[in-house]
Amino acid sequence: MRVLLPEAREIFRAAGASVGHGADDEMVRIPAEVVDEAVSRAPSIVGLGAVDPAKAISIGADHINFFPVGGPPFVSDLDHGRRPGTLADYETFMKLFQGFDILAANAPFVEPQDIPVDVRHLHITRSQLVLTDKPTFAFTRGRQRVQDVFEMLRIRHGLGLDEFVEQPVVWANINTNSPRQLDIPMALGIIDMARAGQVCVMTPFTLAGAMAPVSLAGALLLQHAEALAAITLAQLTRAGAPVVYGGFTSNVDLRSGSPAFGTPEAVRGAIATGQLARLIDVPWRSSGSSASPTEDAQGAWETMFNLQGAIRGGANIILHSAGWQEGGLVASLEKLILDVEILRTIVESWQPIDMSADELAFDAIAGVEPGGHFFGEPHALERFETAFYDPIVAARVSFEQWVEDGELDARARANEVWKQRLNEYEQPPVDDAIVAELDDFVARRTAEGGAAPE
Amino acid sequence: MRVLLPEAREIFRAAGASVGHGADDEMVRIPAEVVDEAVSRAPSIVGLGAVDPAKAISIGADHINFFPVGGPPFVSDLDHGRRPGTLADYETFMKLFQGFDILAANAPFVEPQDIPVDVRHLHITRSQLVLTDKPTFAFTRGRQRVQDVFEMLRIRHGLGLDEFVEQPVVWANINTNSPRQLDIPMALGIIDMARAGQVCVMTPFTLAGAMAPVSLAGALLLQHAEALAAITLAQLTRAGAPVVYGGFTSNVDLRSGSPAFGTPEAVRGAIATGQLARLIDVPWRSSGSSASPTEDAQGAWETMFNLQGAIRGGANIILHSAGWQEGGLVASLEKLILDVEILRTIVESWQPIDMSADELAFDAIAGVEPGGHFFGEPHALERFETAFYDPIVAARVSFEQWVEDGELDARARANEVWKQRLNEYEQPPVDDAIVAELDDFVARRTAEGGAAPE
Repeated sequence: MRVLLPEAREIFRAAGASVGHGADDEMVRIPAEVVDEAVSRAPSIVGLGAVDPAKAISIGADHINFFPVGGPPFVSDLDHGRRPGTLADYETFMKLFQGFDILAANAPFVEPQDIPVDVRHLHITRSQLVLTDKPTFAFTRGRQRVQDVFEMLRIRHGLGLDEFVEQPVVWANINTNSPRQLDIPMALGIIDMARAGQVCVMTPFTLAGAMAPVSLAGALLLQHAEALAAITLAQLTRAGAPVVYGGFTSNVDLRSGSPAFGTPEAVRGAIATGQLARLIDVPWRSSGSSASPTEDAQGAWETMFNLQGAIRGGANIILHSAGWQEGGLVASLEKLILDVEILRTIVESWQPIDMSADELAFDAIAGVEPGGHFFGEPHALERFETAFYDPIVAARVSFEQWVEDGELDARARANEVWKQRLNEYEQPPVDDAIVAELDDFVARRTAEGGAAPE
Repeated sequence: MRVLLPEAREIFRAAGASVGHGADDEMVRIPAEVVDEAVSRAPSIVGLGAVDPAKAISIGADHINFFPVGGPPFVSDLDHGRRPGTLADYETFMKLFQGFDILAANAPFVEPQDIPVDVRHLHITRSQLVLTDKPTFAFTRGRQRVQDVFEMLRIRHGLGLDEFVEQPVVWANINTNSPRQLDIPMALGIIDMARAGQVCVMTPFTLAGAMAPVSLAGALLLQHAEALAAITLAQLTRAGAPVVYGGFTSNVDLRSGSPAFGTPEAVRGAIATGQLARLIDVPWRSSGSSASPTEDAQGAWETMFNLQGAIRGGANIILHSAGWQEGGLVASLEKLILDVEILRTIVESWQPIDMSADELAFDAIAGVEPGGHFFGEPHALERFETAFYDPIVAARVSFEQWVEDGELDARARANEVWKQRLNEYEQPPVDDAIVAELDDFVARRTAEGGAAPE
């Protein structure tokens, strides 16, 4: 791996890695036994706390946590089209996210491009801590920014520095610069998050045919090597630091060269990644994602297919599982709603079937005439309101009724749903004093000029 | 079960069933040991021949066969909207079906309502036998019609009556009139197909909340009882007759009372049905289906979800796996294309990962600079054309390119694809003499007045 941060190279060197290779003094070669020893220290299950303790999550074992869309520069909705993201958009996503129990933890939703980069982290964090009570996300785009986020978390959680280390309450995603490179902000992120005992998801960006070889085996090999290097750096920084193996391997399209998602290769890669993560006994993160340019059939099948791959692969975090569109360039409000329905539908399908005598309904069956129906029958009336999954956006009416309702397709109905949901948003309880302290912190750090990227 | 056909009641009675119950002399009660003995004669794997012997299929064990849409009264496409089906529409579906290897056997696509019912079976069969070379479907809507279909199959396959029995070349779907009723055409169908050694799929129509109790357990109980009765009738008619257990259990929507598909309940039901079919060791048929009124995100996720349930349940036939829309009221040409892409994508994801040294690409990875890319690299150039799944309708271009191409969503692109595919249709080889013989048969039977329903 080429490691651009001197501090990280020094950590590797101190552990027995050779640093420097030919003319390239940033190349690091880590002996297998150093990797094995370091990775063995990583916990196999990671807890992640939340502002509301009831919303803490476990990452590992058989736990599956759906995280929403993270990171697109653009936002889209039916009313205003595709446009650069703003803090207002970011907050809209957060309010919708807060209202869906199926979504477990904050993600970076959309990039608020109207906020200057040096103070953007302050606003992103403030919004999460005031508008939601689920686990927090942080970008690791420089040491000072991460420290600012930690300070804000301590304010919200009412924690001192020592307590904080014992209690992970924030997660970050680390992307290597595939192939085989770890840049300065990402290496700093690993080190700073590990020192603070916070959760790092190590996600090589191995798109087969672009940053990885044109073969699934080659892309997985590269992914695994890079993930091992990143996990090793975290464990060498602090033994037992909570880490998650990130698998994002997909492929480019053979004709256009564009990134493709929800592909058979991504699904095969997810299943293989689950095996690789279990081999080293760390939790792992996958994705629900799509390359479709709009909220259409392709968008739905790609997301659902990627989700199925992640689930079959036993992923513990499924990032981008709602709202991620156009290969990660767009966070779509309508797609958020469509995907939440998909997630709820999938999870409902995991319910075991109640085989009690009452549910087997011998008497009801015996009581209905052959060729008859169960509509008005007592067993039916008792159950009708709650027996089956109740959709939030799927149309289940006659064609005639659908025409009368305006022939709205799922995308158009999702537009209505997110607006209604936004109206129903309830801010979680938070002391005015804490909000004031957070606002003071943001104001002070803004006056100090925020924090430049590294 | 109430059995409306005297001949069927007589078969049950002769085997030891009690016939008549109170005032209802059509009720049949079949002792468990009669069912067990009869069902044990059913083969656990069924072969189904085709006009092209290379397209014969196996139904059972780990074989999964995708069958296209069957039976809707309406057809839909973007150019002409939703309208009653015609023979021309039926033939359009068949030509598209013929061109997709992923689709294994003919299904009734769409009801050709422009053809008088008494001769409709003649035209449906003639079209299949001339325009396709895959296994044939027959409706069992009366004895004479089924005999006509058999005669046409003998013409096309060049078989005598005896050979025909030893070689199943046609399949039919039998729906019970749930709850607990078997009507005259369906009972005749079971008897006639079993006598001729042809393949019967026994599919109770157990929609929880309508023809079945408002509980998944109750609907499955009813489904299983009805399927067992139908399979028993086939085996009592001819021991070893090829039969398939059909599982179609879904539920009505709690608010509208409309049938719903692609639901969590349907998926749970499919997985349970797989267990029930394996319990009695017969092959089984499930569905890919959707209640969406249009070719939108809902349509895609419901079909894909139902397919995943059927696949996880180990179904051997998945009927309606392409083109089925609006809860079975519409056969959609655009949805056929979208679903074929879904099916191909799913099947491609089952390919094992080639872990050969060449695919692992050590040398290619070593040869690309850290932070570089694999675009022009020899390992990439060798593989680029064939390495990954090549979609037929999914958009994988930049947003800018997509806008320049007219902002066509998946539905609009599918419209272009089916037209192109239809242009590319190639009729399978067939002797002019056979076509003439089929046409003579159709003409003669038409002159005789066809066959009235029973």
